[in-house]
Amino acid sequence: MDNILYQIEKPTLLLDRKRVKRNIDRMVAKADRNGVVLRPHFKTHQSAEIAVWFRDRGVEAITVSSVEMAEYFIDNGWHDVTIAFPVNLRQISRLNVLARRARINSLVESEMVVRCMDDTLDENVAAWLKIDAGYHRTGLPWDDDASIAKIALAVRKSEHLQLRGILTHAGHTYGSGSPEHIRAIYSQVLNRMKTVKRKLKSMGMEVGISVGDTPGCSIVDDFGDVDEIRPGNFVFFDLSQLAFGSCRLEDIAVAVACPVVAMHADRKQIIIYGGAIHFSKESMLGSKGQAIYGQIATFESGSWSSTSDGNEVISLSQEHGIVQVTDSLFERTKVGDILLVLPIHSCLTANLLGRYLTLDGEVIEMAKY
Amino acid sequence: MDNILYQIEKPTLLLDRKRVKRNIDRMVAKADRNGVVLRPHFKTHQSAEIAVWFRDRGVEAITVSSVEMAEYFIDNGWHDVTIAFPVNLRQISRLNVLARRARINSLVESEMVVRCMDDTLDENVAAWLKIDAGYHRTGLPWDDDASIAKIALAVRKSEHLQLRGILTHAGHTYGSGSPEHIRAIYSQVLNRMKTVKRKLKSMGMEVGISVGDTPGCSIVDDFGDVDEIRPGNFVFFDLSQLAFGSCRLEDIAVAVACPVVAMHADRKQIIIYGGAIHFSKESMLGSKGQAIYGQIATFESGSWSSTSDGNEVISLSQEHGIVQVTDSLFERTKVGDILLVLPIHSCLTANLLGRYLTLDGEVIEMAKY
Repeated sequence: MDNILYQIEKPTLLLDRKRVKRNIDRMVAKADRNGVVLRPHFKTHQSAEIAVWFRDRGVEAITVSSVEMAEYFIDNGWHDVTIAFPVNLRQISRLNVLARRARINSLVESEMVVRCMDDTLDENVAAWLKIDAGYHRTGLPWDDDASIAKIALAVRKSEHLQLRGILTHAGHTYGSGSPEHIRAIYSQVLNRMKTVKRKLKSMGMEVGISVGDTPGCSIVDDFGDVDEIRPGNFVFFDLSQLAFGSCRLEDIAVAVACPVVAMHADRKQIIIYGGAIHFSKESMLGSKGQAIYGQIATFESGSWSSTSDGNEVISLSQEHGIVQVTDSLFERTKVGDILLVLPIHSCLTANLLGRYLTLDGEVIEMAKY
Repeated sequence: MDNILYQIEKPTLLLDRKRVKRNIDRMVAKADRNGVVLRPHFKTHQSAEIAVWFRDRGVEAITVSSVEMAEYFIDNGWHDVTIAFPVNLRQISRLNVLARRARINSLVESEMVVRCMDDTLDENVAAWLKIDAGYHRTGLPWDDDASIAKIALAVRKSEHLQLRGILTHAGHTYGSGSPEHIRAIYSQVLNRMKTVKRKLKSMGMEVGISVGDTPGCSIVDDFGDVDEIRPGNFVFFDLSQLAFGSCRLEDIAVAVACPVVAMHADRKQIIIYGGAIHFSKESMLGSKGQAIYGQIATFESGSWSSTSDGNEVISLSQEHGIVQVTDSLFERTKVGDILLVLPIHSCLTANLLGRYLTLDGEVIEMAKY
């Protein structure tokens, strides 16, 4: 791996292909064991080439987070796409164009939007009721029977929408603190979704259940009575997921290689070329209880492993990162070297860096919108 | 302005050309009054077209934050460029190519880097000693006479580097809390820089002084004995700068137009298409003492003005933003409308959105690296 470091001029997202494929394999196997469809969220990697690694393992249905991302993957041969974002009325005509080329699954949560879609669409689009099962970001409250019934009926009455199921994102697993808590959230969410499903069934509507967040799908072994899961981040994982217990350190499959541009011996700080325009400003609590923006990894056995907790990115400006390091790391580093940084949130970091460099030196491109 | 809103499909960075030009005019006039060179930092806008608005006002020298950004502006006809980032040894050959085409000003703070540059460069490059005058991000401590002397002498001995001056960034004005405190920081930084200048003079080296941060340059009237200022953010300003006292609300020259995709009457929250991949995750304290990621503005007199403090972006995920609003704004908003969001940090927001839409409907492109 060392030889690819010579070509690195600026912050570069390294990708360990073996780890990525192992992460995919593990989730595919788990979905198979549970008899559920794995419809992975591709917003994490946004790459047609990495998408093929999923297809090679039998994945046919995907999730994306925008109409542009749906266009990109449809252009690259995917035919069953869920746009996991409330339908944006300002993009219905683009949705209509996509629906000619692929099976589009849309998320609806308002009667007005259903009516607007039905008036505007020429093509058929599948609809999933977006259910809020406890996260409180968006969606129909799981226990709001009246609204759920009203919108389900509006979909049934429509000409161009077909009610396919109910969908939720249990994003509150991200702040939950422990695997036990994540299991408890999963179980509660599942029960709530089953309650909604039963109510719709009592109205004569059979629907599928779609759930999916990386902490839940990584930690829970038995997915119970769901039809599909939509995790995304598991393809790379990151320090947040490590903290949640979703992965092991050796599952983190991306790291940012950053040139060292200055050193400050008095305060044991290393200045790297790597800032907010490369990592975003996602933070988590570090070893000293303060906000950190990444942790230093070291090259080991053809990939990377974390150094001890003492080496953390403690500040980011637009291009600069300040890394607080141990005496030992300080001593063995010099200006011009590369420091490897494990990201807090790999989705945002990948989105900013725009391409990958594999450990065997191949550049993998991402979508450009 | 209303008619441009119809064409907005997704998060779009609106630019009020009049406000931008007024912000430029004001800083140009202030630099002129003080008899200093305005070398604006172009990392905020990253646009060749907006750069012309500066050139039209007599600006000839610019600041950028990366070698790529220097290439972009040199390609667009700029000939005097300071790369305000410690020299990255891994990009010296690209620096050399640029030095054939333009006057390049580099920042040095280590003898080793000076030697490496001198060994590698064929062309002449101007050098500025990066001085830490109190911010403690990077640079030579202003009172470390021995290191400053050593590196200045290394530059003097070199074949390809010419010592041009001493440069500092007083980034600690960003956390300072009040205009009085910002003035005090400016004054302290200036005194420290003059001390360094005198020491170099006593060694027979005449150098210029370069300072520059938007809060300092906006709030201080008399720049004192400096040669150039390098503010950047003032071209757009944002909510952070408003909080520092650097600008008035009516100086904020960019706002993000975000489609409304869902509404939650029970908690008076509006879900917008506009998330961390559009705003970054820069936050500040909001009206209720919690972190906020933007504030809602309303269209007024052909531009925008803020609504009251009750309308704030309180959460961002990758594409979603949650806006907590007053009853009044909730009542007059519906799914499909556009909400205007004033950003916390316009540099990061512009970098993510990649282009501008002016209020008269013109698209202004930014650099693509």
